[in-house]
Order: sequence, then C-alpha cells, then structure tokens
Amino acid sequence: MVGAGQLARMSVPAAVALNCDFRVLAETAADSAAQVCARASVGDYRSEADLLAFAADCDVVTFDHEHVPGEHLAALERVTAVRPSRGALQFAQDKAAMRERLGALGFRCPRYRRVANLEEVAEFARDAGWPVVLKATAGGYDGKGVWICDDPVAAARVLAHAIGLIAEEHLKFSHELAVLVARSPRGQGAAYPVVRTVQRDGVCREVVAPAPGVDAGLAATAQWLGLTIAAELGVTGLLAVELFAVGGELVVNELAMRPHNSGHWTIDAAVTSQFEQHLRAILDLPLGAPAMTARHAVMVNLLGGDEGDLHSGLPHVMTADPGVKVHLYGKPVRRGRKVGPRAGAGGGGREGRREGGGGGGGLHSPGAP
Amino acid sequence: MVGAGQLARMSVPAAVALNCDFRVLAETAADSAAQVCARASVGDYRSEADLLAFAADCDVVTFDHEHVPGEHLAALERVTAVRPSRGALQFAQDKAAMRERLGALGFRCPRYRRVANLEEVAEFARDAGWPVVLKATAGGYDGKGVWICDDPVAAARVLAHAIGLIAEEHLKFSHELAVLVARSPRGQGAAYPVVRTVQRDGVCREVVAPAPGVDAGLAATAQWLGLTIAAELGVTGLLAVELFAVGGELVVNELAMRPHNSGHWTIDAAVTSQFEQHLRAILDLPLGAPAMTARHAVMVNLLGGDEGDLHSGLPHVMTADPGVKVHLYGKPVRRGRKVGPRAGAGGGGREGRREGGGGGGGLHSPGAP
Repeated sequence: MVGAGQLARMSVPAAVALNCDFRVLAETAADSAAQVCARASVGDYRSEADLLAFAADCDVVTFDHEHVPGEHLAALERVTAVRPSRGALQFAQDKAAMRERLGALGFRCPRYRRVANLEEVAEFARDAGWPVVLKATAGGYDGKGVWICDDPVAAARVLAHAIGLIAEEHLKFSHELAVLVARSPRGQGAAYPVVRTVQRDGVCREVVAPAPGVDAGLAATAQWLGLTIAAELGVTGLLAVELFAVGGELVVNELAMRPHNSGHWTIDAAVTSQFEQHLRAILDLPLGAPAMTARHAVMVNLLGGDEGDLHSGLPHVMTADPGVKVHLYGKPVRRGRKVGPRAGAGGGGREGRREGGGGGGGLHSPGAP
Repeated sequence: MVGAGQLARMSVPAAVALNCDFRVLAETAADSAAQVCARASVGDYRSEADLLAFAADCDVVTFDHEHVPGEHLAALERVTAVRPSRGALQFAQDKAAMRERLGALGFRCPRYRRVANLEEVAEFARDAGWPVVLKATAGGYDGKGVWICDDPVAAARVLAHAIGLIAEEHLKFSHELAVLVARSPRGQGAAYPVVRTVQRDGVCREVVAPAPGVDAGLAATAQWLGLTIAAELGVTGLLAVELFAVGGELVVNELAMRPHNSGHWTIDAAVTSQFEQHLRAILDLPLGAPAMTARHAVMVNLLGGDEGDLHSGLPHVMTADPGVKVHLYGKPVRRGRKVGPRAGAGGGGREGRREGGGGGGGLHSPGAP
C-alpha cells in the first residue's frame, strides 16, 4: 500500500488475519501505519524510482490516497498489478474528469464548469446563482481545496492563489449520504449499507449506519449506483461514493477508491471490515459479507484540539460506554486534525449499547477523545 | 508480551487500535507474532538476562504462554509491572498447586494426587479406578503432557520417561465447557458467555458460543466461578477456566491466564475481542463489553495435514460462506498443528450466516482450511 496514513494503519489487522505480507510505503518512519506495520519502507510517492523500488517485491500495489501522479501509475502498471488501475484512479484524482464521465453515464452530479478566471466564475453564477463552490480538481482532502464563495470578491480571493479549479453549483441538499462498495478483478461486487455523514468545515464529523430517514428504495438505489459506477469505471478494491440527497434524488459529490472515513464503522459493526474487504478485493479473493452485526452504529471522528494528551481521556470514554471502540492513529494532536474514529454500535443483543448519537460532547470538547 | 505465538499475533490488531506500543519477545524472527509486530525482539524466555533486557522498555509485561520460570518472574517483578503476577501465574504453571488451591477454596476438581512411581499410581487407581489420567504438572499444552492410562502397563510406560506427574480420576463428563473472564488490577471483572469446547486427542477442535444445551443457571454459575477464581487467585488480564460438566455440576479441569483458544471467536462475534480485553485489563483500562454480536458463533481450529499449501484453499472457503473469517498464523504446516482458527457466526441480522457447525469437513480434510 502506497501511503502510510490511518487507512494503511487500519489495514494492518486485516492483513494479519489473512496472512498476507502487507507492506507500506511511508513518507517517514513516524507515519501512522509505519509505526505498526512490520514491513514499512520509507520513500516518496511522487518519485517513480521510489515507487518502482517499493513495488519490486509486491504482487499487488494499492493506495491509501489518490495522490500518486498518473505517469507513475503507468510505470507501476508495467511491472505489477495496480489496483485500482490508473484508468480507474484518474476519476478519483481529477474532479472534472469524474464529473464528465459520470455525466456521460447518466448519473446526476452538481452543475459545474472548469474555470480559469473571475469572468468564467461570474458567467457560471449567472446561471447557477451564488454562492458558487470552487474546487481544486486535484489534491484536496478534508475540506482543503474546496471554497464556498458567496460573491465575486470571495471568488477572486480564491482565484488569486489556486489553479485547476472548477465552479460548482451550491446544492441545497437535505443531507449527505455515502455508499461503500467493493469490486474484485473478476467483477464480484458487494455493497455496504448506505450511511449518513455529517460534515462540518469540510471534515467528516459523524457517520450513522444505516442512514436514518432513508427509505429502502433510496438506499437500494444508492447501492446500485455505487456498484454500477464501480463496474463502469473498472474499479478494483473499494469505491466510496459521497452523495447529496436532494429531495428524493441522489447527486454524486465525490468518489474515493480506497477505504474511506465513512466506512470506519465496519471494523466494529459489520461482518467484514472495509479494510479486510479492500484486501480481499485487490487480491481477487471472494468478497466478505457486508452485513451489519448491530442494528445501528455511529462513528465519530476525534479531532485534535488544544490539549495534546489524548490518552489520559481514554478511561473516561471506556467507562462511559463499554461498547465504544476507540481507534487511535498514533498521530501528534493538531487542532482540527483527525486523530481517530470512535464507533458505538447498538442493537443485535449487545449490552452497554448506544442507540443514538455517538457522543457529540466528546467530539466538541477540544482534545478530549 | 513474552512469547510470539498466535496469541501474541492476534494481540497485534488490538494494540494497533489502542495505540499502545506493543512489543513481543520472540524465540526467532520467524515466530508467528514476530512476522507482524513492528517491535519484535528475539530472545529466550528461559534467560533472565533476555527477559530483563526486553522488560527494560516496558511499562507492563504479559505473556502468551505460562512457561517463564518462577524465579525469572520474580526478577521481572522487581523492575516492572508483571500481569498476571508470579503469585497468580504459579497456579497456571503447576497443576498440582492449582488443584490444591482450588480445592481449598471449595471448587470441585477431579480427584488427584502427586505420583512418583507405579505403586502410587496403582494405589490411587484402587480408589479412583482405571483408566487413570497422568498429567505433567508443568509444561503441557495441546494434549502434550497428558496420558490416559487404561492399566498399570500403560502407566509404567509414561513413568519411564516423565517426571513431576499427578494421577487424576478419569471423569465421565457429559461435555466440556470453558469460561473466559477478565480482571483488571483495580478489580473490575467481565465474563464472556460460556462456550462448549470439543477436544480430540487433547487438541481443541471446535468451540461453540454460547454453549448449546447449557441452561442459564449453569452458565451463570460458570461465569461466577470464573470471576471468583480470578479474584481469589489475584489474576490480572484474562483467565480461561476449562470445565467438565458432570451431570449438572461443574468440575474445574484447567486454568490459563492469557488469551485462550476457546476465546478466538470473540474477534469476530463479541463487542470486545479477548485480545483487546486482555490489553485493557493488564493496562488497567476499563474493560470492554463481553456481549456477543451474533446469536451464536462457531470456531474451528485448522490443523496441518499432508498438504503444505493452505492458501490456495482460501477462495473455496470464502466462497462457501462470505460470513466465515479465516485467521492464519503464518506457521509452516505440520500434521496436527494448529495453523489458524476459523470463525462462523450466525444471527443478529447477518447475511450468509451459518447456524450450525463450523465446517467439520474442512476440519477433517488434511491441509484444507
């Protein structure tokens, strides 16, 4: 796995059980996954030489982010199996290419256009109205690379320092959903229950599975949509589709082709965790059951605050609910940075269950897990 | 953790989530846990110097087996926290000491006596009848160190090459049960549902949770018994109590103070796995909920056979039941050796569930997972 962030870190347990010789290419030996992976190499994912050296011993190469340049993906594909492939990954790397392709396939996306200057933004806004969302086509994450501009002045500020942008209509959605599917090289597919995500400042704060207030028909449509996009784009491994629910309709917001923040709950509340599923998919093993083991589950991201010491809060959290699972990333605490998810699950005969929210209090208390 | 077998290996995922800096002392770099632990040292658990060097950087030392000599445990206790303590571990190390102590506490054990020669065995058999079970008081596992002797000739053969034996009555039990509890240094306790174990040739083949055919009263008695023994012996960490059900009564067979084969199902079918629970207990963190996430679960040990290649059978197993979880130990296949457990869980809203046995076919097919 190229990249050694929390997604690679949480892949380690799945690799241990499957006894697959799992290796990570880390930027530094202190990276989240490098701390816990017995086979961590240090190298630069922007260097073709480093990538090829890492891949030399690998039967399959996969990723915990989508930032490996396309030409390096092509070089990797000449020497080993790359899953997902360059052909699929381009649609997770370039938001404009993704919108074009999905539009051609007939999936609804927000209206958008590539923009290079304020005039083009203003032209787009005459049709779509303000606010306009400006997005970097590549490289964004956790709200970085996304700007909601109320007026031309705000748009001008963004244009002054960013390039490769699209302008997008600011949809009035009722809520945000995500659907996570897996697809193997031989075309087997599996879809997890659709979840509701709560974002704040572009950062995912809370995930509820299954999505409350979503009827069975819409949920099935979302799963069909995920499986269809995965097949049409030739994705191998996981595909996460972030969706806006607009009235009773689903609009595709983002794609990711890797384990995804909206699927962390599967570690503790699904038969097969997303991390195991990703490994099974890229290794072309039969996919595991995606069913839930609890009636509902809530995942809350722990964000860094002013207090650097997270561990001393652990006993309080564990005492408050013996069913809560805390997953720490081994990252130094920085304000607003994801340092771990926390999952609570309910139903299915569990004791100490948590039926409702996943502890918003803890979420808002700076530094407290 | 001193020892780097499969129990240490399956502790790695729990340590990753809790972000505790987990280290193993392995006999060789190829040991099951050493393959997957980012902080593996190689050393001899029979060497006080190796143990002290390993413990120098550890806040807490624990074990994946009970073979560290008592005097070395004492040396470790002078420099760090040892959990379970030497005082508790002696009862897992010495079957005679354990029987004496449990007898004094009023728990029923099989009748036994220490024996040094055939005359003493024959004397014991006059009371208890043949067959007589001869057991090494220390060092046994997986049926090694246990001999069921039908007559004095068989007993003489054992006495010719073994020392430190007890003779034990051969109980006519209706079935075998096990109860797994955890106890933290501050005295918090948690008990998992009682399971039924199926042994063959002294090796655990199958575990069914919760134990079928055991009424709620007997199950509660078994849990009380586990928690009481843990408290009376001052155990910290996990305590597994193997039991014979004789009529409606429970007779204590063995104790283990570590994660136990009868608890592997908890990885996939309990809110808190036994491996996480052991870490929480020895770190004096609040214990996790021991409740099941499925209505029932079956764990089957995969034993080595004539076929050295286990991995090629994986797709068949995974296809047959997408709910089955296979955990491989990374051990070379040897006939009759445990190379991994396989858990199937049912109920609780799962798809692809397995209600009954855990695939005895796979169990019996040599080499097939």
